[in-house]
Amino acid sequence: MPGDNAIQPVRWNNNTLQLLDQRILPDQINYLELNTVQAVADAIHDMVVRGAPAIGITAAYGVVIAARQRYSESSSDWKRLLEPDLELLFAARPTAVNLNWALQQMRQCLEDIETDPEHVLLAQAKRIHAEDIAANEKMGELGAALIEPDSGILTHCNAGALATGGYGTALGVVRSGWASGQINKVFADETRPWLQGARLTAWELLQDNIPVTLLVEGAVSSLLQTGQVHWFIVGSDRIAANGDVANKIGTLAGAIQARHYGVKVMVVAPTSTIDMDAPDGQAIPIESRSPDELTCIADKPVAAKGSQVWNPVFDITPASLVDVIVTEKGIVRAPDSRKMATLMQA
Amino acid sequence: MPGDNAIQPVRWNNNTLQLLDQRILPDQINYLELNTVQAVADAIHDMVVRGAPAIGITAAYGVVIAARQRYSESSSDWKRLLEPDLELLFAARPTAVNLNWALQQMRQCLEDIETDPEHVLLAQAKRIHAEDIAANEKMGELGAALIEPDSGILTHCNAGALATGGYGTALGVVRSGWASGQINKVFADETRPWLQGARLTAWELLQDNIPVTLLVEGAVSSLLQTGQVHWFIVGSDRIAANGDVANKIGTLAGAIQARHYGVKVMVVAPTSTIDMDAPDGQAIPIESRSPDELTCIADKPVAAKGSQVWNPVFDITPASLVDVIVTEKGIVRAPDSRKMATLMQA
Repeated sequence: MPGDNAIQPVRWNNNTLQLLDQRILPDQINYLELNTVQAVADAIHDMVVRGAPAIGITAAYGVVIAARQRYSESSSDWKRLLEPDLELLFAARPTAVNLNWALQQMRQCLEDIETDPEHVLLAQAKRIHAEDIAANEKMGELGAALIEPDSGILTHCNAGALATGGYGTALGVVRSGWASGQINKVFADETRPWLQGARLTAWELLQDNIPVTLLVEGAVSSLLQTGQVHWFIVGSDRIAANGDVANKIGTLAGAIQARHYGVKVMVVAPTSTIDMDAPDGQAIPIESRSPDELTCIADKPVAAKGSQVWNPVFDITPASLVDVIVTEKGIVRAPDSRKMATLMQA
Repeated sequence: MPGDNAIQPVRWNNNTLQLLDQRILPDQINYLELNTVQAVADAIHDMVVRGAPAIGITAAYGVVIAARQRYSESSSDWKRLLEPDLELLFAARPTAVNLNWALQQMRQCLEDIETDPEHVLLAQAKRIHAEDIAANEKMGELGAALIEPDSGILTHCNAGALATGGYGTALGVVRSGWASGQINKVFADETRPWLQGARLTAWELLQDNIPVTLLVEGAVSSLLQTGQVHWFIVGSDRIAANGDVANKIGTLAGAIQARHYGVKVMVVAPTSTIDMDAPDGQAIPIESRSPDELTCIADKPVAAKGSQVWNPVFDITPASLVDVIVTEKGIVRAPDSRKMATLMQA
């Protein structure tokens, strides 16, 4: 676990789950305390917590809370009662596969439990959490090693400490690369509609004294054209078996522009993000969210009344536009099905 | 001039200039009355009025107001006194060349005036205004003729009635193509940071009962991938002699994505937008605006304090990414210096 100073989107304190409310960052730093599985599912759905690995970790702790409740209801029948709770957590957000992965990990652990499950499940959730941070540190090291000294990078959305157990995936590489001098300039686009870039990534990097320059997504091509950026570095919500990458809407646009300008694309994600059951990106469900995310800003209506809205919140970047996928198990250059399978068998 | 129902961003009423305040659309419809040249320059700079042709028309009326004032100060020396006013208007925004074009038109008219200039200059400003609307209607016809029946289009920013004397450039083509059945689906991206797409284009099209679907700029690639869009249609703030196109930030990104997906790019702009003195896009000055446009939304701070901001508000789309430029004098496919020169000599 990171020290007290580190950014912790998810923490287990006083025997309960606490989530840093990312909807009100950076304006307010406030932890919500969650005591029911419904509250945990709602928090995932409503984006109190977001980022595929952080969602997975949250769901794991959610299972602890649910099992505690079900065991108190019936020490004999609690496993059966727990099933709808697992379903509820699973359905909270459709695109991130880490959620399902974490639930599977918890389920495997469940099978062998005969007595009060809380202690064992909590240990498992904490293990998932700690392993995620360790994976991020490993990916930070592997990703930074790919970058030439004095490089500039552009990132999209927030694949940072806030999106993970801590340290971050894409921003883990930025942290490691900044520390080692590989990276000397960091750009973040604001990432509409939720402004994860402006609200979360900029805040998170500045907490670590890494200067960051914000731009609108429309300015990405103009930026790449200047030659200041050498890598476009992002996280992922789900990677298909062929290396297609689901990530925040706008990632595909960034990758196409990067390719156009000869800027390399790095996707940083733990192997828990890789879904070998999805043969390619088409098999990955893409979540759409409320039109309000476009038509209102800060609760003020901005768009013309009567406008229709299309608000998919993820897109699929084909493997052909990805230069390298960085995982805790190793890197995959020019990913394809064969290389991804080799990685997962390692 | 369009009828009373038409959207008029600029109008001459009760012997003075009235501008529809585009900063508060679509929330409020309010005309500001401007009685000094300083007020006109401020209105252009502060984006009460925006869009290259509308800025040019506004500046032309601004010259009328300035000349009226200077003639009242000195009926013998007013032309000399007027010079700094012309400079003030010229400097209000750097990228749109129509501003300079309109001032040149007014200046030519000035030379022959011996007596009270108001009547002659007003007639000239009204002529510029009326010719802009006529040019837009002609471009609407020429542009729509290039589009196959039942096509979908995507537009960026607002190149509509609000950006011109009336009817619009890109949206003029949309109006004509919608009326003729060439266009049956219109998408508009929201256009950060000023949200011209969400605030102005959606409002303007809905006023004419043309349904519109909004999306974030990050979703453009996902949209193009669906095959629903056949043309990316935009206006321009300045076109260089080789066909490079300056337009709202994000146009270049859209053009690169359009090329990637085989969607055609149409730039619609009157010949007053073409700057034969700029050999290519590099000669066009790109305005940057306040960081506040990114860090605050609806006066509420959103970005982390301490973030640096890069906020260029135009970009240059190279002629090689433009399939056709539509002007009131005719169309130019696959523009280059030779074809642009031929057009301008026509």
